[in-house]
Amino acid sequence: MFRKLLTLKEAQTVLYQNFSPKPVDIEQVPLLNAYGRICAEDIKASMDVPPFHRSTVDGYVVRAEDTFGAEEDKPISLQVVGKAQVGQLTTIKVAPGTTVEIATGAPLPKGGDAVVMFENTIRKNSTLKIYRAVAKGENVMKAGSDIRHGDVLLQKGQTIIPPLIGALAATGATEIAVFKHPKVAVISTGGEVQEPGKPLSPGKIYDINAYTLTAAVSECDCEPVYFGIVPDDFEDLKKTLRKALAGADAVVTSGGVSVGPKDLMPKVLNSLGKSGVIVCGIAVKPGNPTTIAVVDGKPVFALPGHPTSALLIFHILAKPVLFAMAGRIKEPEYMRVEAIAGERIFSARGRRTFVTVNLVQDKSGKARAFPVATGQSGAITTLAKADGFIEIDEQTQFVDAGEKVTVCLF
Amino acid sequence: MFRKLLTLKEAQTVLYQNFSPKPVDIEQVPLLNAYGRICAEDIKASMDVPPFHRSTVDGYVVRAEDTFGAEEDKPISLQVVGKAQVGQLTTIKVAPGTTVEIATGAPLPKGGDAVVMFENTIRKNSTLKIYRAVAKGENVMKAGSDIRHGDVLLQKGQTIIPPLIGALAATGATEIAVFKHPKVAVISTGGEVQEPGKPLSPGKIYDINAYTLTAAVSECDCEPVYFGIVPDDFEDLKKTLRKALAGADAVVTSGGVSVGPKDLMPKVLNSLGKSGVIVCGIAVKPGNPTTIAVVDGKPVFALPGHPTSALLIFHILAKPVLFAMAGRIKEPEYMRVEAIAGERIFSARGRRTFVTVNLVQDKSGKARAFPVATGQSGAITTLAKADGFIEIDEQTQFVDAGEKVTVCLF
Repeated sequence: MFRKLLTLKEAQTVLYQNFSPKPVDIEQVPLLNAYGRICAEDIKASMDVPPFHRSTVDGYVVRAEDTFGAEEDKPISLQVVGKAQVGQLTTIKVAPGTTVEIATGAPLPKGGDAVVMFENTIRKNSTLKIYRAVAKGENVMKAGSDIRHGDVLLQKGQTIIPPLIGALAATGATEIAVFKHPKVAVISTGGEVQEPGKPLSPGKIYDINAYTLTAAVSECDCEPVYFGIVPDDFEDLKKTLRKALAGADAVVTSGGVSVGPKDLMPKVLNSLGKSGVIVCGIAVKPGNPTTIAVVDGKPVFALPGHPTSALLIFHILAKPVLFAMAGRIKEPEYMRVEAIAGERIFSARGRRTFVTVNLVQDKSGKARAFPVATGQSGAITTLAKADGFIEIDEQTQFVDAGEKVTVCLF
Repeated sequence: MFRKLLTLKEAQTVLYQNFSPKPVDIEQVPLLNAYGRICAEDIKASMDVPPFHRSTVDGYVVRAEDTFGAEEDKPISLQVVGKAQVGQLTTIKVAPGTTVEIATGAPLPKGGDAVVMFENTIRKNSTLKIYRAVAKGENVMKAGSDIRHGDVLLQKGQTIIPPLIGALAATGATEIAVFKHPKVAVISTGGEVQEPGKPLSPGKIYDINAYTLTAAVSECDCEPVYFGIVPDDFEDLKKTLRKALAGADAVVTSGGVSVGPKDLMPKVLNSLGKSGVIVCGIAVKPGNPTTIAVVDGKPVFALPGHPTSALLIFHILAKPVLFAMAGRIKEPEYMRVEAIAGERIFSARGRRTFVTVNLVQDKSGKARAFPVATGQSGAITTLAKADGFIEIDEQTQFVDAGEKVTVCLF
């Protein structure tokens, strides 16, 4: 009945020895739907952007050297030989002594290497007086100055944000290869839980975990597959887990893993195939009954039934794995803030303890962390109300009031 | 040709005088799909959670007073009269001198007010020896101790995160009222831009803005409606804008708003109905040609054609409006970090200037902000590479190297 529990670190080591999370697949999606997805390959620019030299102002294209010496009281005259429109290439050339009118964004006609702004010129018919010299390249956006053919535009594992979508569109792409969302089955177990929606039977409670864990799976760039509630029955559990493993890339269950006589989950998991259960209990609080299995090369996170424990352990153990399977190079880090303990905060002896806390600014402007008032690890509202959590290691009995703590914000 | 530009602050004042953003509608969604949505009403708990007193451990239910005085070397004996199972109400009562076996999560039988853990008992047939006294309420989760009937579980405007979904499920809810995603039409204009996907015609460039702005609209909890590219033609623009205004709650366009002779957007917007153009040019850099209209009570943000300017101005002006229309009480704030200017950073005279910057940690560990190297406001890659931006007000000519700056992170 009493087993030696692994430390959190040992459990993580065993997990990654038995399962190396990899992206599950790649799919092509239209660029217009790619926002927030994870790029599945390094993408090189297929062309220069802009593809030609463009004017950045409305004015006149010149050979810069023709304007040298032009000043406000000593203009230089050039002959206007045509007009360069946006969206069109012109055959007109800028020969020495001539100039071409140009609109912002229009391609530069051959021969021209700079643009004089309208406000520095006075035109009379086809004669243009220029009152300010320009340097070569002035008011010109060179071909390839934004994106150069062959530049790496996006890297494998990058999250696709609006300017990256713009960079791809600029090179004419309409689709992009992204990592597929892994499918993650979510199963609740237990004879006492009932699906919301119907009047509650006497002695039962509504299921919380399938709901919180489905949402938490979405948060990891994964697609949750809701399996509802399975009663505490060996064959029922086995059948549902088989189905889940066949259709999903990972499985998250809750309940059925404490030390009671009805806790079938480890037995069921061991009956499904290799490797079976690899972690059975972890020296953490809350969440010590947490069980992890690998079956047919897919991870199964069997979380405790208490909603807060289940969600916290999901964050600590399952989330990094699911993020890696979704193709993120690096899981998004918790935002951390430094605070001081507002009171003495106790840990569970010999177990890595996670304490949900609220932050309160004191008179001196310092943030003080207070444990969220609840003795019940089942209290789902605890997590909703908490600002974050602190971690107390196995060797520390308590953090004293006034000591520094690091708070991971939710 | 030269007009007096409004300051950014004046433009914002005029905008909110002419348009007060409100959520567009409410819809019911299944709880399983509610993650990340915005709650549309205050929701009160319809029941106590848990609905009955539950045991938090495996053990024996007792009347606490019956255990008083029990010690390791002085056990107290009680008679076991039955077993309380999870998911069932029992008719067995805990009379004085008796006890009932109970599993974690099972409802407490009547008469019992505390639970002794298994490990503090030794049972022989129907006689239980108890080696540790318990206080009233020990190892019991009281009815309503997690959620009390009538408690406000969610507030209007709150983003729906996993524990909040759990709290709703706990009270038996299966649906939730959320704010509908506003529809936002995205239109690109210009004779020189072409949709990606086909070979580029000579003199043309691929459209960037419809792609970046579609993604940026998604970022604001809105549903983008892609209208593609409209040529610089009064009637074409008018027809498309009419269609966009008929089907969407807001419109974002790019291009057609600088001072060139082809800039039709303000004229078209004024032809569509009241109020018409309310802001025509803002003293900012980049983005000074930005035009804002309200037509038939819907806002139209006519952004400049330069991709970086368009996206930056979208962030500064359109995003707060769209977030409010999506029902967010408070738009998510930019993360801000303090840094020191790595070099002298110039602003545009008389204009509020936004400078995209990269942050570099110097030897002393301080963050130094350097402007992203580009002279081209059209360079879309600038935004993808930048860590954030700094804002220099209208009265400041430059920020000197070593001065403190606040960087808004992307």
